[in-house]
Amino acid sequence: MLGSELERFVGEDLGEWDDSSTIIPDNDVRASIIAKEDCIISGLAEAREICEYFGLAAEPLYDEGEFVPSGSRVFAISGNARKILQAERLILNFMARMSGISTLTRECVLLAGAAHKSVRVACTRKTTPGFRIFEKKAVFLGGGDTHRFNLSDAVLIKDNHIKILGLEECLRRAKSRASFTKKIEVEVENYDDMLLAATSGVDIIMFDNMSPPQISEGIRLLSEKGLRDRVLIEASGGITIERLAEYAATGADVISLGCLTRDARWIDLSLEMD
Amino acid sequence: MLGSELERFVGEDLGEWDDSSTIIPDNDVRASIIAKEDCIISGLAEAREICEYFGLAAEPLYDEGEFVPSGSRVFAISGNARKILQAERLILNFMARMSGISTLTRECVLLAGAAHKSVRVACTRKTTPGFRIFEKKAVFLGGGDTHRFNLSDAVLIKDNHIKILGLEECLRRAKSRASFTKKIEVEVENYDDMLLAATSGVDIIMFDNMSPPQISEGIRLLSEKGLRDRVLIEASGGITIERLAEYAATGADVISLGCLTRDARWIDLSLEMD
Amino acid sequence: MLGSELERFVGEDLGEWDDSSTIIPDNDVRASIIAKEDCIISGLAEAREICEYFGLAAEPLYDEGEFVPSGSRVFAISGNARKILQAERLILNFMARMSGISTLTRECVLLAGAAHKSVRVACTRKTTPGFRIFEKKAVFLGGGDTHRFNLSDAVLIKDNHIKILGLEECLRRAKSRASFTKKIEVEVENYDDMLLAATSGVDIIMFDNMSPPQISEGIRLLSEKGLRDRVLIEASGGITIERLAEYAATGADVISLGCLTRDARWIDLSLEMD
Amino acid sequence: MLGSELERFVGEDLGEWDDSSTIIPDNDVRASIIAKEDCIISGLAEAREICEYFGLAAEPLYDEGEFVPSGSRVFAISGNARKILQAERLILNFMARMSGISTLTRECVLLAGAAHKSVRVACTRKTTPGFRIFEKKAVFLGGGDTHRFNLSDAVLIKDNHIKILGLEECLRRAKSRASFTKKIEVEVENYDDMLLAATSGVDIIMFDNMSPPQISEGIRLLSEKGLRDRVLIEASGGITIERLAEYAATGADVISLGCLTRDARWIDLSLEMD
Amino acid sequence: MLGSELERFVGEDLGEWDDSSTIIPDNDVRASIIAKEDCIISGLAEAREICEYFGLAAEPLYDEGEFVPSGSRVFAISGNARKILQAERLILNFMARMSGISTLTRECVLLAGAAHKSVRVACTRKTTPGFRIFEKKAVFLGGGDTHRFNLSDAVLIKDNHIKILGLEECLRRAKSRASFTKKIEVEVENYDDMLLAATSGVDIIMFDNMSPPQISEGIRLLSEKGLRDRVLIEASGGITIERLAEYAATGADVISLGCLTRDARWIDLSLEMD
Amino acid sequence: MLGSELERFVGEDLGEWDDSSTIIPDNDVRASIIAKEDCIISGLAEAREICEYFGLAAEPLYDEGEFVPSGSRVFAISGNARKILQAERLILNFMARMSGISTLTRECVLLAGAAHKSVRVACTRKTTPGFRIFEKKAVFLGGGDTHRFNLSDAVLIKDNHIKILGLEECLRRAKSRASFTKKIEVEVENYDDMLLAATSGVDIIMFDNMSPPQISEGIRLLSEKGLRDRVLIEASGGITIERLAEYAATGADVISLGCLTRDARWIDLSLEMD
Repeated sequence: MLGSELERFVGEDLGEWDDSSTIIPDNDVRASIIAKEDCIISGLAEAREICEYFGLAAEPLYDEGEFVPSGSRVFAISGNARKILQAERLILNFMARMSGISTLTRECVLLAGAAHKSVRVACTRKTTPGFRIFEKKAVFLGGGDTHRFNLSDAVLIKDNHIKILGLEECLRRAKSRASFTKKIEVEVENYDDMLLAATSGVDIIMFDNMSPPQISEGIRLLSEKGLRDRVLIEASGGITIERLAEYAATGADVISLGCLTRDARWIDLSLEMD
Repeated sequence: MLGSELERFVGEDLGEWDDSSTIIPDNDVRASIIAKEDCIISGLAEAREICEYFGLAAEPLYDEGEFVPSGSRVFAISGNARKILQAERLILNFMARMSGISTLTRECVLLAGAAHKSVRVACTRKTTPGFRIFEKKAVFLGGGDTHRFNLSDAVLIKDNHIKILGLEECLRRAKSRASFTKKIEVEVENYDDMLLAATSGVDIIMFDNMSPPQISEGIRLLSEKGLRDRVLIEASGGITIERLAEYAATGADVISLGCLTRDARWIDLSLEMD
Repeated sequence: MLGSELERFVGEDLGEWDDSSTIIPDNDVRASIIAKEDCIISGLAEAREICEYFGLAAEPLYDEGEFVPSGSRVFAISGNARKILQAERLILNFMARMSGISTLTRECVLLAGAAHKSVRVACTRKTTPGFRIFEKKAVFLGGGDTHRFNLSDAVLIKDNHIKILGLEECLRRAKSRASFTKKIEVEVENYDDMLLAATSGVDIIMFDNMSPPQISEGIRLLSEKGLRDRVLIEASGGITIERLAEYAATGADVISLGCLTRDARWIDLSLEMD
Repeated sequence: MLGSELERFVGEDLGEWDDSSTIIPDNDVRASIIAKEDCIISGLAEAREICEYFGLAAEPLYDEGEFVPSGSRVFAISGNARKILQAERLILNFMARMSGISTLTRECVLLAGAAHKSVRVACTRKTTPGFRIFEKKAVFLGGGDTHRFNLSDAVLIKDNHIKILGLEECLRRAKSRASFTKKIEVEVENYDDMLLAATSGVDIIMFDNMSPPQISEGIRLLSEKGLRDRVLIEASGGITIERLAEYAATGADVISLGCLTRDARWIDLSLEMD
Repeated sequence: MLGSELERFVGEDLGEWDDSSTIIPDNDVRASIIAKEDCIISGLAEAREICEYFGLAAEPLYDEGEFVPSGSRVFAISGNARKILQAERLILNFMARMSGISTLTRECVLLAGAAHKSVRVACTRKTTPGFRIFEKKAVFLGGGDTHRFNLSDAVLIKDNHIKILGLEECLRRAKSRASFTKKIEVEVENYDDMLLAATSGVDIIMFDNMSPPQISEGIRLLSEKGLRDRVLIEASGGITIERLAEYAATGADVISLGCLTRDARWIDLSLEMD
Repeated sequence: MLGSELERFVGEDLGEWDDSSTIIPDNDVRASIIAKEDCIISGLAEAREICEYFGLAAEPLYDEGEFVPSGSRVFAISGNARKILQAERLILNFMARMSGISTLTRECVLLAGAAHKSVRVACTRKTTPGFRIFEKKAVFLGGGDTHRFNLSDAVLIKDNHIKILGLEECLRRAKSRASFTKKIEVEVENYDDMLLAATSGVDIIMFDNMSPPQISEGIRLLSEKGLRDRVLIEASGGITIERLAEYAATGADVISLGCLTRDARWIDLSLEMD
């Protein structure tokens, strides 16, 4: 992460004058971060950068995105005791939040993959402000697709756009205004728009808030018209883990889930002095 | 929030060149944010600041920390349609995350208050890096206590400190090194340390990972020695909502819960064009 | 532009203590920016933001990207004389540099369009460090395509990648690692790679440093195999304005030109007190 | 350059998530930057700093400001292949832009020096916003004079000042308000003002938009009055390379040229993997 | 100190282009910082960080907060001569300002301690904007108490608060709104308010602008009511060094002095090349 | 001041969560800043900017640099009571520090002017890190000369330079390396160097740590050689207010005093609610 970004994160947890850490002697110790539950671990690179900032030696004991059984040591730290205590909370916050997302993502990837081998599970832009890059990275390390990082990453024509201008005009504008390097995605609510989009050469069609049978039927229609392999199909909108397999089985290429970043629980990790 | 902070949050979601928003006409519209479920609403001040940044008029329809029934309009926006679409996701991310925390906090405050009228429910430093101030504010608006914002906010003598130096030396150092304007809190694991801390004039005693009966017994002992009203008692460590009432009933002054910020679900909110 | 960015630009030209501007009286005056040569004007939005920063009233007299004949007033400013003198150089530097790029771009767009109606003229990442967004915007206002803003904007498999891993492995990795929201572009040096790329479903094929006849032949081959309408064709590498028409005539979809940002002359503009 | 500045430049070219570089293996390689045309090289210090940022070893093979014949290796890099690909464009943009300016400056310095041995060739404040320090440094490395970095660097009384207050009042104010550590320069349009300025003890007289014969006559008049060696003479305003020698021959001390930074072509450089 | 902060301090003294330092040869030398008068030295950590920034080797020859007799070498530097000249003024400004504060603080601590052994001498928020952390640190190193770093550090109920709401309401609000982790301090003007505050459980009572006899009487009253050991007593407001002993002798726990940071003279230090 | 700078100053005094200000009602009040002693007032522009930041109306009742008798209202504020309390300390710190410097400067200017009418009194670079611009501005408002803001502002050849290279070589380098827009100043220790410098065309000669008679004799020698009006003479080094008149009487053009910024007392100001 950027040096200035790291400074900000550190500053948020240190404040201006930390008396607590000065209580203990200024000598070197060893500590470990222990996983208190099974998880897909992530945030190790960030933990290492935080350690470097504090002048601590760091050694990840697993790879990013690897499965870690409960009770395992995942990260070893050594160095000045005061610095370890100052770095502790920030490291744990990074790893616990990121690993929680990676773990939930992996679960969803496996669930969806069981229903439809090549389907992708993607997150959305429903992320904690200021922390998106780390949340998306955690999704990636869990095996998911990062989707758009921001509004500039691809052109997305949504219901509100279509309501105002009509789909045809939207497509005309998108094609003439956006760089050829960007994909164009259209959110469709009915099969007419879907067919119009597919024949107009959009790159991705998003079925938003449609049921699995509706999606299946849409895909069937596209195949019938010989348009299926010209577009990617994304299913989106209120999809829960409970119904994920059902959506995956429709044959959509991508299932996107706001819950990956919104509802992931933190993994229980703790730092223990050796 | 600071202007530079707001710029960062906006930049994260806009990226360098947003083509999607340029598709639609550049005219003025009205939109509302709707709560799709019951909640304690927060993040309204932040939503307003984001609107100002984009030159949009904003009107909160509820007070911060107020209960909002499902289906209600909570926030009205008017202005340039493109700007509204650019501001939408950031506003929703702020409000959904913060309201989720406020809602969970309120629930806990009511639960604990039913068991012990004057008890406080506090959050911890287990917050998303870079977003702490907003998560703590959401706790506050839900009726909770913000606890320490960072390591400089009070002196906390923890098990690791005591293990290295012994409690007496820790207390001696804390008192001589920390400013008189700061409180001193001690994490205790047994009644001897508790009594030593209380007689040494610490401000707060934290019972960490102790059961409700153990806490009750500790408080009884303090009362017996005439020390109860000289210290605040905080119960902390792995306390779940399920057992919250039980902890509150011990008579502790404060129950702190990592889950307020760690496990709060997002509130389902959506922006709809009028 | 971001407030912090504007501050930086202003600070660069003001320094810490400007004595010159304090020489003249502190009263209000009017001034105009005059184009001393024909041009496609751009940078008006930036000029207005700079004026706002200095508390000056600003009125653009042309639209961004419009043709301006030599001798025209393009921008009117009124306000404190000292502030106008402090803002003058920064405004002119923005407008002269951006308009120079827009003017050259328009010339190229017309040249290329005469040879092949639907061809796009794009710039590259050969931009002045720190000023890319404005240079790309100037290309856009001149009618050109902004191409990738940075390395994250699309996946580009270049000769060095292919040399190390072979094209097939590169494609396999790109597809599995990059988000489905991003396009994949491949730089090809021969027709075998071209065909492999096109059948593998890449989005864009770049002919790098190939002559117009070689490009025409490549496009013919793609058509023969029924692959032409599945990919966009970009011609790139050392293309000069002199040979632009020839490249456009090959039927490529995009011609990219480093010279748009690298070699554009500044437009001669001056600020005159009314 | 400042760490925060470097971060900004790097961020502009990397974006938030670079997939392309992850395609290739994560191993160490060697690369060279080759000059594809004769040039005065500069930007080597900046290239080295960028390499350090990415953890790459760097070795400049020429001195800053040295002549480099076409085809030469000018800079050697070794380290992680992915990092080299990420650093490539930024390094080339710095070196190509700066070397272009140094090369043009050297040409002008030689031209002017042939006409008048001790004359200085200076640039102006017509620089790309945000990149001035590097453009001025490139002028310096080419043998030119950096002139004022910003409005605070010396007091410059211009035609607009004189129009409003008259020259005498301007001089009075400049002398009483500006620190004694700063030079005072006056832009003159006629010989009366010139003589007034010289007798008032200004440090520099600028002949703005005057022809070589007019400048020669002005200098003759100053000599006649015994004032020549009390002031520096700067010739400025629309001076082209074509007429540079003619201006230098007037005996002016400094010739300033906006074109050094405005119209310099980029030098053609490329990075090649060894 | 933060990297970005250090960059700012360095940039303030370097400016954009330092010609003076380039005059001398680019070779390595040794230099020492000499105390020209007796002092309590501080700012050594900051001096070392500045040296690191410039790539210089640094060796403090005293401990922070140690007494240094006039004429002593306090800090040794070695490295590039140009860099030493560039770092010189910033290092001296830090050390001279901070040591001045530490020296004055030590003097006050000794004076007050002679009158009342356990009294603390504290500074206030009357500090140079942007430099508070270093001025407070200098007070700490001189043996003083840092007091509140900012408005968030404790709750302070002042005369203006009481005037508007009355003390009882102020206390009620402070207790319900502020986190339990913060101390509450009340500024009192009469004994009624003092007794009310003490019985309400505030942590600190500040006697503002009261004379030593008034303070003594207040403390006597508190003792009489058995409230003395429940609160800390701070004497504040226009206390000069001349009357410090008198205030200390009242038995107050803390004497706070704006003059520690406001009126401390700089210590005379100079950097000499060996 | 820059927006980002102001944010930093405000943040330093507010901290993350100010409970004290929330105690009082959220209504509008009026307040005044009162001078408790005679002074030359400055910092009014900064006070106004701070008020604007907090949304407060501000009205300066004196001009910057004007004499203010003890007891006068110097600045009126109105607006939200909480905001006034949050802005109070920062406003006072700015005004008290700056006015202290302006007051001392004015005293010195008058003292020196009485001894030698046209002499200037200048400050040095001995300023509080991060606050230099405001301290120099306060000197300016007190009637003093700001001297160099940083190392880039003029070329200063000091004893250490001369020791290493000899004066002649130093002058040769300074003239060839520094821009013609900068003055060159030389610190001299003897009359030979003085004469060499003056005949070499330097702009300023600094007599460092020389006594008034030595300076007078130097000036006499320069006059004798007809060199006096070609150079400015600066007397510097350990000059106290007590001996200022004596130095001024030597006929030096500038007397520079580190004490203006180093030893100025704060002016006693207070904010009172109306």
